[in-house]
Parts: sequence; structure tokens; C-alpha cells
Amino acid sequence: MSNDKASGRPAALETALAYFGAWSTKDIDGTMSHVAGDIVCDAPCGCIEGAAAYREFWAGFMTMLRGAKLIAAFGDETTALIMYDTETLPVKSAPAAEYLTVKNGKITACRIIFDRAPFIEARQQAAQA
Amino acid sequence: MSNDKASGRPAALETALAYFGAWSTKDIDGTMSHVAGDIVCDAPCGCIEGAAAYREFWAGFMTMLRGAKLIAAFGDETTALIMYDTETLPVKSAPAAEYLTVKNGKITACRIIFDRAPFIEARQQAAQA
Repeated sequence: MSNDKASGRPAALETALAYFGAWSTKDIDGTMSHVAGDIVCDAPCGCIEGAAAYREFWAGFMTMLRGAKLIAAFGDETTALIMYDTETLPVKSAPAAEYLTVKNGKITACRIIFDRAPFIEARQQAAQA
Repeated sequence: MSNDKASGRPAALETALAYFGAWSTKDIDGTMSHVAGDIVCDAPCGCIEGAAAYREFWAGFMTMLRGAKLIAAFGDETTALIMYDTETLPVKSAPAAEYLTVKNGKITACRIIFDRAPFIEARQQAAQA
């Protein structure tokens, strides 16, 4: 198995960590630099296809993001699996997991899991207030 | 890094896969054979403490489980991260991720992430029917 030369980490894990480092600091251009043009993302809210839609997804999330902390990250040369917690304006702790497929240093597929329930609840409370 | 002798897999990954194999086939005793008495589980619905409460959690889930399919699994000697999809009676596709801490072959901590939204929706629809 070949490793990334600088870090010693497998290639897909290296990309996943760089991607996490970018979006968790609200660097949308940095985030997208790790994303393939034809990315397909399977998220709780449905399928997001293509870099433009994916950029919109992250840019929207970044408007409410206060911080993120990595819980775990594993990967090999072609896939990576990460789990992290996020603090957002509507929800104090919103953990998520992402399974990433990486080709030539770019994320081509992403499966995101997170709990939408507290976001829906926060929205309902805001609407009632 | 020492590996499990039979499989060549790191110890915590081996435990995680055996645990997944047990609960995904509704083997509650097999599932609990991989769980420490003082397990602490951080789930969307709150914190579950101790093997008795954890058994109740899984037994309850098994009553609605139709099947589960592993998406990804990684691990080292002490931790493992798995992602899978489940088919349940109320929700056709309910993916989840678990981050497991393993000591002496037993899971001592578990962080589960899944989307409660479709389960809440299904319950509301059932209540209205």
C-alpha cells in the first residue's frame, strides 16, 4: 500500500483530513479544492450531484457553523471514514459521519449521516417564537 | 501493531465486525458478548449507560430490524469506526455510524449517529392513520 509521502497517511485519509480542515474553518474554496466536479453526495436531505450543488450545501452549512471537532478518522488509498462533532447556531452538538471515496486526490462520492431531528426542532421553535 | 491472529485484522476492528455480525442477524446474546458491563453509549436519543440498558436498546431496535449492510469499517487496536445501512419496518433506509472503543475484546464506549427524522415522521404518520 502506498502512502502519502509527506504525512505517511494513506492517500484518501490525507484528502479527507485536508477537506475536514478546510470546511471546519469555513474555507469554502479550500473545501472545494478537494472535491471532484462530478461528486455525488448521499445526505439525509437527499442526493446532491455535482460540485456546484455541493458547494451550495457546504456554504449554507458554514453560515451556521461555529466549530467542528474530529472524533475519529480512518482511511486507505481510495476511501476514508470520518466522524466529528459540530457546534452550530441552532444546534449545540450536531455530530456527523462521512464516508468518502477519493480518486486522484479528489472526493468523488460522499455519504453523510447526521441527525436532522434537532435542526427540525430548532426550526419549529424559531417559527413559533 | 499487533493483529488478531485469526483474521489479521486489528483487535478493535475484529470486535466491531463480530458485534455488527451479531446485531445485524438479531443475535442479542451474541451482540452483548462483545459489550463491557460498564459500556457508555452516546446516541441521538441520549446517553445509555451499562450493559442492561444497552441490551434493551438493541433488543428494541431488533424488533423493527429487517436487515443491515456494512458500508465501511476501519479500526486499530483500541478503536473502530463503522458505517452501515439498515432496513427497518418503519424506515426503508436508515444508515448509521458507530465509533467504538474496545478494551480486552469488549466494547466500553459507543457513539452512534443516525437520522431520527424519518423515524419521527413514520411515528407521526402511524399516529394519524
